[in-house]
Amino acid sequence: MAKEITSREEDYSQWYIDIVKKAGLAENSAVRGCMVIKPYGFAIWEKMQAQLDKRFKETGHVNAYFPLFIPKSFLSKEAAHVDGFAKECAVVTHHRLMNDPNGTGVIVDPAAKLEEELIVRPTSETIIWNTYKDWIKSYRDLPLLINQWANVVRWEMRTRLFLRTAEFLWQEGHTAHATKQEAIDEAKQMQDVYAEFAETYMAMPVIKGLKSDSERFAGAEDTYTIEAMMQDGKALQAGTSHFLGQNFAKAFDVKFQNQNQKEEYVWATSWGVSTRLMGALIMTHSDDEGLVLPPKLAPIQVVIIPIPKANGVITEVVENIQAELKAKGISTKYDKDKKKQPGFKFAEYEMLGVPVRLAIGKRDLANGTVEVARRDTKEKFNLPLEGISDAIEKLLEEIQDNLFQKAINHRAENTTTVDTWDEFQEVLEKKGGFLSAHWDGTEETEEKIKEITKATIRCIPLDQPEEEGKCVFSGNPSKKRVIFAKAY
Amino acid sequence: MAKEITSREEDYSQWYIDIVKKAGLAENSAVRGCMVIKPYGFAIWEKMQAQLDKRFKETGHVNAYFPLFIPKSFLSKEAAHVDGFAKECAVVTHHRLMNDPNGTGVIVDPAAKLEEELIVRPTSETIIWNTYKDWIKSYRDLPLLINQWANVVRWEMRTRLFLRTAEFLWQEGHTAHATKQEAIDEAKQMQDVYAEFAETYMAMPVIKGLKSDSERFAGAEDTYTIEAMMQDGKALQAGTSHFLGQNFAKAFDVKFQNQNQKEEYVWATSWGVSTRLMGALIMTHSDDEGLVLPPKLAPIQVVIIPIPKANGVITEVVENIQAELKAKGISTKYDKDKKKQPGFKFAEYEMLGVPVRLAIGKRDLANGTVEVARRDTKEKFNLPLEGISDAIEKLLEEIQDNLFQKAINHRAENTTTVDTWDEFQEVLEKKGGFLSAHWDGTEETEEKIKEITKATIRCIPLDQPEEEGKCVFSGNPSKKRVIFAKAY
Repeated sequence: MAKEITSREEDYSQWYIDIVKKAGLAENSAVRGCMVIKPYGFAIWEKMQAQLDKRFKETGHVNAYFPLFIPKSFLSKEAAHVDGFAKECAVVTHHRLMNDPNGTGVIVDPAAKLEEELIVRPTSETIIWNTYKDWIKSYRDLPLLINQWANVVRWEMRTRLFLRTAEFLWQEGHTAHATKQEAIDEAKQMQDVYAEFAETYMAMPVIKGLKSDSERFAGAEDTYTIEAMMQDGKALQAGTSHFLGQNFAKAFDVKFQNQNQKEEYVWATSWGVSTRLMGALIMTHSDDEGLVLPPKLAPIQVVIIPIPKANGVITEVVENIQAELKAKGISTKYDKDKKKQPGFKFAEYEMLGVPVRLAIGKRDLANGTVEVARRDTKEKFNLPLEGISDAIEKLLEEIQDNLFQKAINHRAENTTTVDTWDEFQEVLEKKGGFLSAHWDGTEETEEKIKEITKATIRCIPLDQPEEEGKCVFSGNPSKKRVIFAKAY
Repeated sequence: MAKEITSREEDYSQWYIDIVKKAGLAENSAVRGCMVIKPYGFAIWEKMQAQLDKRFKETGHVNAYFPLFIPKSFLSKEAAHVDGFAKECAVVTHHRLMNDPNGTGVIVDPAAKLEEELIVRPTSETIIWNTYKDWIKSYRDLPLLINQWANVVRWEMRTRLFLRTAEFLWQEGHTAHATKQEAIDEAKQMQDVYAEFAETYMAMPVIKGLKSDSERFAGAEDTYTIEAMMQDGKALQAGTSHFLGQNFAKAFDVKFQNQNQKEEYVWATSWGVSTRLMGALIMTHSDDEGLVLPPKLAPIQVVIIPIPKANGVITEVVENIQAELKAKGISTKYDKDKKKQPGFKFAEYEMLGVPVRLAIGKRDLANGTVEVARRDTKEKFNLPLEGISDAIEKLLEEIQDNLFQKAINHRAENTTTVDTWDEFQEVLEKKGGFLSAHWDGTEETEEKIKEITKATIRCIPLDQPEEEGKCVFSGNPSKKRVIFAKAY
């Protein structure tokens, strides 16, 4: 296992790919654009899933499962939606193969052509709202609060492990409500759930905001987003929650009888996060030695390495420590593989981002101590064996907090308030990061800024005071600053 | 909500469909053969998943994720495998839609034809072994013990909710080993894991056996199966575990260097259970009043209903009971909906198969008791409020045991040892169930018996003594009895 990874300074993109591959998180498959999520990567994703799923259920949602395939005609029913997804669809046209009459191998059986083509779901609003039509008759059937964990396919031309892949894993919540306000509240609530998860578990600060019209989800009235800053200063959209208005209810004719016996169209939301979060996690914390994981999402929180190798006495002490940590819900691994040297193991677990490493040798035992190494700061120090599990529990919390604080500081350092167009261009080019600037609210200005600088409006932050100003590009009046950045 | 369901005696198939629909487990979707798994059905499936996943991890497996799509050429690499799956594949041929130049709506963009068609995975041996090729170099890389939870598609012509659907959810384990014996042991171990889960959690007795050659998985050397008997006496294959020999290693050229520095092909297994288990669960225990769930898989284990409706005193008592049960890990629901009468609620939770129902009214409070109803036996009795949570905990165990015992008895009553061809035909026609009979071991005989009677060899049981006998059909010598039955 070659440990060397490209440094961030040398080539940030290559650094990212090196980490994904060398920490065993994912790899490209034989199918263009589709990835294999390897066991270590999947273990992290499972921890994310478990936490998110818990939060969805705590907020009253239930899971269900809807078909992988969407009839082509469904996609066309919501005009903006089909525009957004038609150009990147996997289309199923046949349902059988046959032996090639002219040779070996198999070919598509022309007699098995489908009457109507099926699209592999790029998102499930259409098939779900077609189903909800039968489930919703009265206000008593509302709200409907459903989530599904699923794979989806968007035929992206340029792909990148976790960040943009043709197939990815995600969850998609699809809710139905009797009133507009309730649907808006739901969309905002799920944005809050995502933000809380990102900050508390991923140790990744996010800005909660609204998308501008041009960046909105295809078919939504409003898209609530959480935006994070990666180490290179670029933005990453980490999760979105859409207020869909009555668009899908109208497209699929989903009406309910309200308390006054009147028929109304149903109000909707949808919201999702995906395996893209894995990319965000990697790029928020990792360094030139490998992956850095926040303790709350680390499959192995503490690795214990015998120095120079395991023996009966060391193993007994280690097993006691493991039992104590297990009782606290802390996961450990005792690596007593005799074929590898301690130094090799140190590098290996650094690559894997294990938050805390303990090393225990004869001398440590004599001193009643253990050597502790933090993955985040790379500090090493000794701690007494007595009370070690309490100390480690505290240390894991410190590491979690430190990673979050570091990311907060990084974002603060790389967020610049700009008021002129020269400044905008100069900061974007020389420093990068987030630019907080006034914008006149028009798509035209947004488009021009994007053309010239490649920066887009990441979001219109929700938690900010109104402020009179002038658009950084057009000079027209503006009441709010928005966040511009180059983005993944 | 219309409660009436067709009785089993009247029409067993319709009874099954009625339960699936009226208990809100699943329904047909707008896509032929694909089902929607509704929230209540999905909650049961999630409980199954959690238990199975725990067992997989306890036996050393890790989860990962492989692509949904399989290049057409991969499927052809293992001859038996392609024969088994080519006739029921969803084939992706294009990756884009476009606006119809002749009208409204969208059509497949002919310019976006894929160079090589992609098959939506019917099972993942081929894509996974193509990946393992890069992961396995030396004996040190073995064993590889990987599972994935995924959706798969098999274009079945006749579908039935849960039992046979074009898309279904499952898990598929794919393991790689250095020796033949280790792979066989793994395949058997997973058969044991499935059997233990089926009996302990689903309360569904199973026979562990080997499949005959003609019923084996396409590409396997041996298929280990667990076979259950449904209430109509028909067999249901509930899970299979395959010893794949070196077939896929040879097809994808996966070799490893053994401890003596020699190259060898890798040995393989694969094993899976699917949402079909939901069908098995329903048909093992349910009755003419609706679903019956074993307590260990019931999303709601205890429902509590106020008589005639909730008031402050009743609610206080109920909340105390709920807290005590929660502390024991028992899930409850307190249904204080004032719009529904108690009798209506009783029927509703019977339909949903909730194992225990408590009813509490003023008189019960005065007596210090609560009325308890068991879903399995429909017995009703009073229990003192004092110590109620201990009593319910015990009752749930009793219900779990009773359901299992009832299923064991049903199977015993409907399993017949037959020794002549007349007896075979008569028993199959008049009584049905499992027939334990001698078979000469030839495919020819198996095929003829199937043609004449529609019964197939469900399995060659593993735990049975050798016994000299004569084939029930051909009269040729046989050393073992096998299980014949009509099957789902």
